[in-house]
Amino acid sequence: MSVAVFLTPQHPDGVEVDPTRPQLLVTDQSATRGDGVFETLLYRHGRIREEEAHLRRLAGSATALDLPLPEASHWRAAMQLALGRFHESAGEGAEASIRLTASRGVPGESGTFWVLVSAVSRSAATAHGPSDGLRVVLLDRGYDAAAADRAPWLLAGAKTLSYAINMAAQRWAQSHDADDAIFVTSDGRVLEGPTSSVLIARRSATGEVTLLTPELETGILAGTTQAAAFEVAAAAGWKLGYGPLTPADLLAADGVWLVSSVRLAAAVTSIDGVSVPCDPELHRVLVEGLDAAL
Amino acid sequence: MSVAVFLTPQHPDGVEVDPTRPQLLVTDQSATRGDGVFETLLYRHGRIREEEAHLRRLAGSATALDLPLPEASHWRAAMQLALGRFHESAGEGAEASIRLTASRGVPGESGTFWVLVSAVSRSAATAHGPSDGLRVVLLDRGYDAAAADRAPWLLAGAKTLSYAINMAAQRWAQSHDADDAIFVTSDGRVLEGPTSSVLIARRSATGEVTLLTPELETGILAGTTQAAAFEVAAAAGWKLGYGPLTPADLLAADGVWLVSSVRLAAAVTSIDGVSVPCDPELHRVLVEGLDAAL
Repeated sequence: MSVAVFLTPQHPDGVEVDPTRPQLLVTDQSATRGDGVFETLLYRHGRIREEEAHLRRLAGSATALDLPLPEASHWRAAMQLALGRFHESAGEGAEASIRLTASRGVPGESGTFWVLVSAVSRSAATAHGPSDGLRVVLLDRGYDAAAADRAPWLLAGAKTLSYAINMAAQRWAQSHDADDAIFVTSDGRVLEGPTSSVLIARRSATGEVTLLTPELETGILAGTTQAAAFEVAAAAGWKLGYGPLTPADLLAADGVWLVSSVRLAAAVTSIDGVSVPCDPELHRVLVEGLDAAL
Repeated sequence: MSVAVFLTPQHPDGVEVDPTRPQLLVTDQSATRGDGVFETLLYRHGRIREEEAHLRRLAGSATALDLPLPEASHWRAAMQLALGRFHESAGEGAEASIRLTASRGVPGESGTFWVLVSAVSRSAATAHGPSDGLRVVLLDRGYDAAAADRAPWLLAGAKTLSYAINMAAQRWAQSHDADDAIFVTSDGRVLEGPTSSVLIARRSATGEVTLLTPELETGILAGTTQAAAFEVAAAAGWKLGYGPLTPADLLAADGVWLVSSVRLAAAVTSIDGVSVPCDPELHRVLVEGLDAAL
């Protein structure tokens, strides 16, 4: 079951609506233009994980799109309203995904803003182990590594509702003997998954571990789960680093993961059909750390 | 006023709904992912212009997205139903825009398909003259000219609902002393406008006129109005050609136009702040020809 709460001028802290009934006009620019932004948060172990980081990223995405947004306090209130109603039905403390959507709304009117709380299936929430990990394909994102920087109208780094390419990339992967994709720039830099960030770990000859993620300057999303994983890694005594990373770096790593808010850390087991190792000890530290820390 | 008609399994030829009431679920993937395709057609002078070309392009876009689509006959019936109801209210023969939208729908269910018929404002329908034409900026689309060809998951050439970048480009133009934008590849090829195709005309020393448009291989949309303009040009004895075109070609042309279904042909009067000429005779042939032919 799901609970939907709309933030409206009359109800800035949210009003519950029935998500099984139509709630959007056919002229809403979320539906006609993919013109808006979103965030997906996880409620687990009694709290909303990385709430402030997600609200900050939502605000940053909205700024990139020049989209006026309700204050964070209103989003927090609407999330609490929706979670409260969800837990009345699903049981106290039940794990949930929380999607915040901000649409430009109907032309000439103010935006459309809503919170949708839904049950999380166990398979989605459980991190994959190295043995049941992901087969990924590397897909060219078309952009070179400098495009995001020189062309702000490309909205790189903003989490927009225009996800048709992301969805097409995942369909492409799934129709080519893979589970998911990792985007690379046209000049060979590793970027991100269609709905995830990329992490790699390296263990040196002396046993020192370094956790790396691609650099934000390429226009990737600032991953909230990636940031949490960096905190886990720092606490475990690992070193941290940012790209540039190349496909060769992925193949030579001691572990590659796709991380996202609901799925957490999923180990990558093959890239373009080539098996890649995932050190079980590194995987355990990362997954258990994320589970405890978030 | 507007009329909305949904194509449903129960009503494959369409059923009218009230577009002033919500008709879409908050989980519809048009609104959550920009996952779908669309077309905008013009009804003018008693008929739907370029109906078959638009239906073919809709089908092509849907194929690129692996999105099952109602048969063209159902779209035609739904358009007739919507137009009939529109003309009952707006007056027989009233000019209208017709938007066909095909969404992937709610996860796990079939797609959502609808027709929206709306009045066209005179200013939108009237082609701009050379004197009241468009100031445009050239904006880097981030892709090189070969990206569309090597990366089909980028959905180049498909008219998807994921238009956030197109809208951002137009906002960028309007906040930088311009009216619209023309996208160029990262390697300097002219592509298209965010919601239009680009045409240029050259007049030789001997008076011979050539009408050109960028080549489809760069991943631009196959323009239905561009195709109609080519027919007009051929009838006028002009030669026809396809790119590659560069920004220098735009600046050296005897006319540059942005063409689209509802706006028809709008003359470009400046590019990045540099005035460009538009030969009034060429403009007249193109605009009058499109008006008569379409």
